[in-house]
Amino acid sequence: MRISSAFDSGNIEVVKAEDPNDIQLNIRKDHQSDFYQWFHFRLCGQPGETHRLRIMNAGNAAYPKGWENYRAVASYDRDTWFRVDTVFENGELVITHLLEHDIIYFAYFVPYSYEQHQDLVQEAQQSHLCRVEDLGTTLDGRDMSLLVIGDEENAKHRIWITARQHPGETMAEWFVEGFLERLLDTDDATARELLADAVFYVVPNMNPDGSVRGHLRTNAAGVNLNREWQNPSLEKSPEVYRVRQKMEATGVDLFLDIHGDEAIPYNFLADTSGVPTFHEGIQQLQQRFQSAFLAATPEYQTRYGYPKDAPGQANLTLGCTWVGNHFNCLAYTLEMPFKDNDDLPDELYGWSEVRSMQLGRDIMPAIRAVLPDLR
Amino acid sequence: MRISSAFDSGNIEVVKAEDPNDIQLNIRKDHQSDFYQWFHFRLCGQPGETHRLRIMNAGNAAYPKGWENYRAVASYDRDTWFRVDTVFENGELVITHLLEHDIIYFAYFVPYSYEQHQDLVQEAQQSHLCRVEDLGTTLDGRDMSLLVIGDEENAKHRIWITARQHPGETMAEWFVEGFLERLLDTDDATARELLADAVFYVVPNMNPDGSVRGHLRTNAAGVNLNREWQNPSLEKSPEVYRVRQKMEATGVDLFLDIHGDEAIPYNFLADTSGVPTFHEGIQQLQQRFQSAFLAATPEYQTRYGYPKDAPGQANLTLGCTWVGNHFNCLAYTLEMPFKDNDDLPDELYGWSEVRSMQLGRDIMPAIRAVLPDLR
Amino acid sequence: MRISSAFDSGNIEVVKAEDPNDIQLNIRKDHQSDFYQWFHFRLCGQPGETHRLRIMNAGNAAYPKGWENYRAVASYDRDTWFRVDTVFENGELVITHLLEHDIIYFAYFVPYSYEQHQDLVQEAQQSHLCRVEDLGTTLDGRDMSLLVIGDEENAKHRIWITARQHPGETMAEWFVEGFLERLLDTDDATARELLADAVFYVVPNMNPDGSVRGHLRTNAAGVNLNREWQNPSLEKSPEVYRVRQKMEATGVDLFLDIHGDEAIPYNFLADTSGVPTFHEGIQQLQQRFQSAFLAATPEYQTRYGYPKDAPGQANLTLGCTWVGNHFNCLAYTLEMPFKDNDDLPDELYGWSEVRSMQLGRDIMPAIRAVLPDLR
Amino acid sequence: MRISSAFDSGNIEVVKAEDPNDIQLNIRKDHQSDFYQWFHFRLCGQPGETHRLRIMNAGNAAYPKGWENYRAVASYDRDTWFRVDTVFENGELVITHLLEHDIIYFAYFVPYSYEQHQDLVQEAQQSHLCRVEDLGTTLDGRDMSLLVIGDEENAKHRIWITARQHPGETMAEWFVEGFLERLLDTDDATARELLADAVFYVVPNMNPDGSVRGHLRTNAAGVNLNREWQNPSLEKSPEVYRVRQKMEATGVDLFLDIHGDEAIPYNFLADTSGVPTFHEGIQQLQQRFQSAFLAATPEYQTRYGYPKDAPGQANLTLGCTWVGNHFNCLAYTLEMPFKDNDDLPDELYGWSEVRSMQLGRDIMPAIRAVLPDLR
Repeated sequence: MRISSAFDSGNIEVVKAEDPNDIQLNIRKDHQSDFYQWFHFRLCGQPGETHRLRIMNAGNAAYPKGWENYRAVASYDRDTWFRVDTVFENGELVITHLLEHDIIYFAYFVPYSYEQHQDLVQEAQQSHLCRVEDLGTTLDGRDMSLLVIGDEENAKHRIWITARQHPGETMAEWFVEGFLERLLDTDDATARELLADAVFYVVPNMNPDGSVRGHLRTNAAGVNLNREWQNPSLEKSPEVYRVRQKMEATGVDLFLDIHGDEAIPYNFLADTSGVPTFHEGIQQLQQRFQSAFLAATPEYQTRYGYPKDAPGQANLTLGCTWVGNHFNCLAYTLEMPFKDNDDLPDELYGWSEVRSMQLGRDIMPAIRAVLPDLR
Repeated sequence: MRISSAFDSGNIEVVKAEDPNDIQLNIRKDHQSDFYQWFHFRLCGQPGETHRLRIMNAGNAAYPKGWENYRAVASYDRDTWFRVDTVFENGELVITHLLEHDIIYFAYFVPYSYEQHQDLVQEAQQSHLCRVEDLGTTLDGRDMSLLVIGDEENAKHRIWITARQHPGETMAEWFVEGFLERLLDTDDATARELLADAVFYVVPNMNPDGSVRGHLRTNAAGVNLNREWQNPSLEKSPEVYRVRQKMEATGVDLFLDIHGDEAIPYNFLADTSGVPTFHEGIQQLQQRFQSAFLAATPEYQTRYGYPKDAPGQANLTLGCTWVGNHFNCLAYTLEMPFKDNDDLPDELYGWSEVRSMQLGRDIMPAIRAVLPDLR
Repeated sequence: MRISSAFDSGNIEVVKAEDPNDIQLNIRKDHQSDFYQWFHFRLCGQPGETHRLRIMNAGNAAYPKGWENYRAVASYDRDTWFRVDTVFENGELVITHLLEHDIIYFAYFVPYSYEQHQDLVQEAQQSHLCRVEDLGTTLDGRDMSLLVIGDEENAKHRIWITARQHPGETMAEWFVEGFLERLLDTDDATARELLADAVFYVVPNMNPDGSVRGHLRTNAAGVNLNREWQNPSLEKSPEVYRVRQKMEATGVDLFLDIHGDEAIPYNFLADTSGVPTFHEGIQQLQQRFQSAFLAATPEYQTRYGYPKDAPGQANLTLGCTWVGNHFNCLAYTLEMPFKDNDDLPDELYGWSEVRSMQLGRDIMPAIRAVLPDLR
Repeated sequence: MRISSAFDSGNIEVVKAEDPNDIQLNIRKDHQSDFYQWFHFRLCGQPGETHRLRIMNAGNAAYPKGWENYRAVASYDRDTWFRVDTVFENGELVITHLLEHDIIYFAYFVPYSYEQHQDLVQEAQQSHLCRVEDLGTTLDGRDMSLLVIGDEENAKHRIWITARQHPGETMAEWFVEGFLERLLDTDDATARELLADAVFYVVPNMNPDGSVRGHLRTNAAGVNLNREWQNPSLEKSPEVYRVRQKMEATGVDLFLDIHGDEAIPYNFLADTSGVPTFHEGIQQLQQRFQSAFLAATPEYQTRYGYPKDAPGQANLTLGCTWVGNHFNCLAYTLEMPFKDNDDLPDELYGWSEVRSMQLGRDIMPAIRAVLPDLR
């Protein structure tokens, strides 16, 4: 038996891995940071035997509430990822699985590799509707890519979408993949209508370094990018620095920042009602957006989510609040669950990459509902 | 050069086909009927040369208004169907095309063959959510198949969908294919929510005989099925007879009858406001359904359509009106264009099979919007 | 319960179909002929129950030896066709099957519909290497299509391939599909080498009327085309008449006529050693062809087959012998089994459409081995 | 404009990249080694403009002859890789290309990433014919995976295949992918016959560290694995050490070591005629193998290749010679071109990943030809 993680977004430390019944593991911290919760590893074991894996340091992970009612994902073919028996007890996350083949991969959520990211960018570029803009490099030297979709010159509205500031929230990039698939589909009437009036600026992966390194929340310098928006720097947060710079150049009329939430088993939006420039016009847009999103899919709901910021009390270091405040526009953080949508639980897959992609398609009618009044 | 139509849904008569510049054709009438407008034929010609085809009897077809601003579809591979130069002049429909390969197929709209129909039924059956019920045979001995999707025993609502009473309106079966694809997708949240409360009875093809025979509007006996709902008979309209009988057994809470319209270049619904049992409850459902459908896709609109029947004046021989009146339920005829949706014109494909399928998926949020109050 | 066959290549007569345990059927004779053995029908029955179907007139079918150790094919999705329990006893073919869904199709071999045939021709035409030539019509008015592949003008060798003179031998058209797939693959080195020197004339379906009608061996006039080659007529065998005429125009250097054999559970070739013009040069080509075919695939063998004709005693009414004799060229009838290849038996599928297609690809090295010396 | 290579198998150093007409680059040496020739980088440039890239240190690369008549591969979608204008002049490799999209990737040959490698292993594992054995880790901690295909216990013959000792020879892993696809195809008669008597041990990637690092020839320690077979060590060449150890445990009856050759524009085999234990039995096997390979595909030839070693003079540090000598068995190094097969040149793609995969399938008849007499 052997457990390994020397691959894209791999993360695990092996304490003991001799007895299938007593596999002891720890999650590695993000580099230069105390955050940890993302794991991704390969186990080569004994088919036909039950393997019991204990992640010993789970109790001190970034979001221990995330482990309650959570089930890990696993895959034999790295394509279909299913949920496996998982309990959180005595501060440990215990995964139990009867092995069916020699090798299995486990992960916190369905991975989205840097190779997939590169393919996504190149695939988008094939569309005549899309061009790719190079935003420069990350601290590890990777490319920051911006997709510009639509008629930049004549567009009435500028819509920005960013994903995966927190690299372990891979559902965010799956969401973007579904979104782009629909936006670039020239047979899709909604996409055609949106692109008649708006241009989209999409950053599919805000944090490629953290993604490849197997981080939960931070970049190569151990920095949480979603607390850097007020004062980003080329030294510590070039990813935010470059995107903010480009936003200043284009302007922003609608901003969606795509995330995953460890604890809450629902899809929800966090808004900008606590930012200084918030006003009734934005509130009306919010109502229309949310009501159209509710109509478009039962995966979205408004009962569960983060408590609202008190007026004027929003933390402006976040992408959503900073952008919403600075550009005085409609802005949301979209959160998807690591666990499942408890309104429509799926025993086999839980919240999945397929549903994340579909949510990316289903948010389009909500954008369409507010489009004429964005600015 | 040779023109032929001895295949599924083939329809043409050759008057003259020697000179590519002067090809003279007529559309055959539906068997035992005066209706004609559907055409579908193969041309084996001279690649590199322009072919000019005149359908001489177009002016007396069932819906001459259908030829105005209409463009025929054509295909080299029987998979991708594109629009070709077409004008209606002097009572003739004139198609002009520079041939790129030896053989090309022309049709009134993208065909949907009986083989595809058989595949559709078998494919649906593979889902554990679906069973196929045999409704008996048509006059030509073909099978009438009913798909029953969902939990018949516990469902609160019974939703019926029929398509292609008029066999030449192939977009109706494309619509059903898209609809079924989504309804049977176990990852789709909307489908899952609908199937939690409703059972669907779907007849993908109400008129297989007319379909194979290359008819526009009638069955093997030359009967327009959508005028048979008050008094169907096993002798003349067994297709309607058997479906009505089954409806009586199950009850109907919502009925959608899927069609294509020759003349109007928009998608629209025709309702039951003219039937005797119409009442405010249905009207409220209509408003909710249409408003949700408008929100779901820009392909649907309410500006263009048929004039409304005066109260109590509806023709109850139609499927939609008869069912709506008899079961006192929400019922619609859905019409898609043969031409294009002029709100979102597509130079290359016009209204297409792809868009018909997508409309089949996009009607689902409209059903969801009325579901709790259907009965 | 109901059994039907009103579709492409359908063939069955229902004697009794009320009790799943006692289903009584007969195969219909080919039109104006006594041949019968092909069957193809749909059964709508009781999932979870065992169905016992007796084909009562099997004992008097064209090739009763064909029923020994034969197992029928069946499919739930019309895509995957598997073998089902079948015995031949008391002159009846008895099929026993526990039904898993509402509807199942049974057939003598995996069907190849006329729609598939049309698609095959159009797909081939998409290649710049291929043009389609119209050979005129059959008695039922269907199109006879000839694929011409390669550089007709400069080719040193003319290779003719015909399939499905006997319409119930559907494996022949599957073989052609595999063959064409490889021949038109511009990445395939063998195909490129062949096309550098040879032009291919391929008739994928010699008998479309018999195919659609659900015949075993004859065309719309009840004529066995493979006995018409000496004196074909436009009245009774236009299919052969037109192909022969075209062959006279092009010349033939190698001829392969593709068939299925009801009785022998092996793939084998029948040659032209009994024709008057046979000589040592042909014999040497035969040895090289067969030895290369043996090396290319274990599906081919030389132990089992038809007895050789005595010198000069061949029946020249067959395609293979007539062509081989008339053009003084290498000519073969290739026979594939309806049952299985007993050298490599497959419990689940027996001889299948997949293996037929592969044989179509694997015959290419045999053609390559004789190519330089064909003429 | 920006050029980057911070991704799987990336390799380039930018000297100057401001002017599309004067892009100056160098290839990085393999870590702790002087070898270099593999390059792989991304260029973000000006669509519509011609870009001229000079690899300045090409003249001192490992195989300068490899640059003669060589053309680099490029891709806009990372899926289709085509050849681009390339000349070798004044010791520089000069690539000229008119950019069609914003971003293009260039490489020495079509890349095969570690993600693809992981997928390949997991995909193979899905077959019931295959198990994966963990051979331990590389110096960088990556997994060494061995695929064991067939019935290990009862097999009469043990066949070993290794690929990509030299990581830049990516065609070797494409070859293995094609080979595995066929070997695991349960419809393929040749594969079924081989697996009736033989078990296959396949190492798809002997050098994952060098692959990810963008090396031409060496592992993470700068060691050329194909010179380590006499005295491999866990410190410097654990990849060879572990494979050799496993070979000793299983025995070897046939060995194929898959490579690419920089200079020679043909596929060819290098044999073991120079090893001490070489004898006539092996020579006869060689003749049969090569003659069957020649018959199977025009991509193989015997006119061009390496000069034969004099008897007893072979360098036994190579995989092929060491294994052939030690196990006294048939053993080959298979070389594919980086350039093209000049017998069948392809202007657009040259030698490609598609043809490499096909060669992997087409070697199977050659194995079949020798199988009964391997031991």
